[in-house]
Amino acid sequence: MKKRIGVVLSGCGVFDGSEIHEAVCTLLAINRNGAESICMAPDMELSEVNHLTGNETGAKRNVLVESARIARGKIKNIAEVKAADLDAVIFPGGFGAAKNLCTFAFKGPEATIQADVARLLKEMVAAKKPIGAICIAPALIAATLGKEYAPKVTIGNDSGTASAINQTGSSHVDCPVTEFVVDRENKIVSTPAYMLASNIAEAADGIEKAVKAVIDLI
Amino acid sequence: MKKRIGVVLSGCGVFDGSEIHEAVCTLLAINRNGAESICMAPDMELSEVNHLTGNETGAKRNVLVESARIARGKIKNIAEVKAADLDAVIFPGGFGAAKNLCTFAFKGPEATIQADVARLLKEMVAAKKPIGAICIAPALIAATLGKEYAPKVTIGNDSGTASAINQTGSSHVDCPVTEFVVDRENKIVSTPAYMLASNIAEAADGIEKAVKAVIDLI
Repeated sequence: MKKRIGVVLSGCGVFDGSEIHEAVCTLLAINRNGAESICMAPDMELSEVNHLTGNETGAKRNVLVESARIARGKIKNIAEVKAADLDAVIFPGGFGAAKNLCTFAFKGPEATIQADVARLLKEMVAAKKPIGAICIAPALIAATLGKEYAPKVTIGNDSGTASAINQTGSSHVDCPVTEFVVDRENKIVSTPAYMLASNIAEAADGIEKAVKAVIDLI
Repeated sequence: MKKRIGVVLSGCGVFDGSEIHEAVCTLLAINRNGAESICMAPDMELSEVNHLTGNETGAKRNVLVESARIARGKIKNIAEVKAADLDAVIFPGGFGAAKNLCTFAFKGPEATIQADVARLLKEMVAAKKPIGAICIAPALIAATLGKEYAPKVTIGNDSGTASAINQTGSSHVDCPVTEFVVDRENKIVSTPAYMLASNIAEAADGIEKAVKAVIDLI
């Protein structure tokens, strides 16, 4: 049986959802490592951003419905997924990870976490099942698990974000774009991707290594 | 100077725009071959499809604005792009290529082509600059160039679509998912991707080969 890797999406587009290149490179790396992707997202609203202008439009979209674009329609409501259904879980980046899955973009270390995202993350770490986090998503992991597990994660080398991560009880570790950081005790793998990448190949190089590291930890 | 590869998008999502996996695999392959992507799309409406249910919602979105999600905001209006600005051009698939860039999904061989898409394609083939087409996008090439250039293209092996392509004056050639077809006279490269792919790695394998073939033809 193939290893089952949850991929938690947060919308469709870097400014209000999942970063699309990161999400697709994650799905491709999972497939090329012989594992199966199980896409999921919360059924909740997001505030739409026009990706041509970068401005909020004032309109709302639905995170699960927009994430379905990346998943080609094959996606679950995260409320229906338990750690027992997965061998590992990976969170691509994009502002959606910090605005929809949690409020880190607005509240930093005081962020609140979407209820099912928090539940699934706590179930996974308690079950010693690997967690991968890409780009800004390690901040979500830090805000969720910092106090209880003190995870080591990277978002690259941005000092403001690193400081906010350290204030959650987690530890930030600087990392180059094409590499990744492993917290072996908590089985958490993170890579900077578009926090540092100047092109898609740099992001993909780090994601490919991080996804393989997640699968190897199962 | 890097080779400049136009990537013509048609929205963001397989059912009403560009197929996201195909578009991202195209951008990654261009980058890994040392070339530069220049994303573009027409400024026009599309009919929104809910990708969770597969149903049309009745709402409209804008092709250029939605395509900007895949391009991370770095995208041009195709009306402002000439063949002289590019060394080659590639069209990812998705229903947007057959519903927005032309009307092949509704009219088959009688399809009308979006004006700037038709202009750019005719400029490129006249200038002997390579054209790549993925998934259903070869039907757009066939409908645009069939009468004058009789291109050879593939969409895999779907007999209905192949027959419609043959009725444009073009010739359809069957092709396995991880391979590609080259029309050397017209410098047109095509690959089936999700017309046949059962997973993202199969689509990516064919796209990587096709993108390299396009760049090698420059």
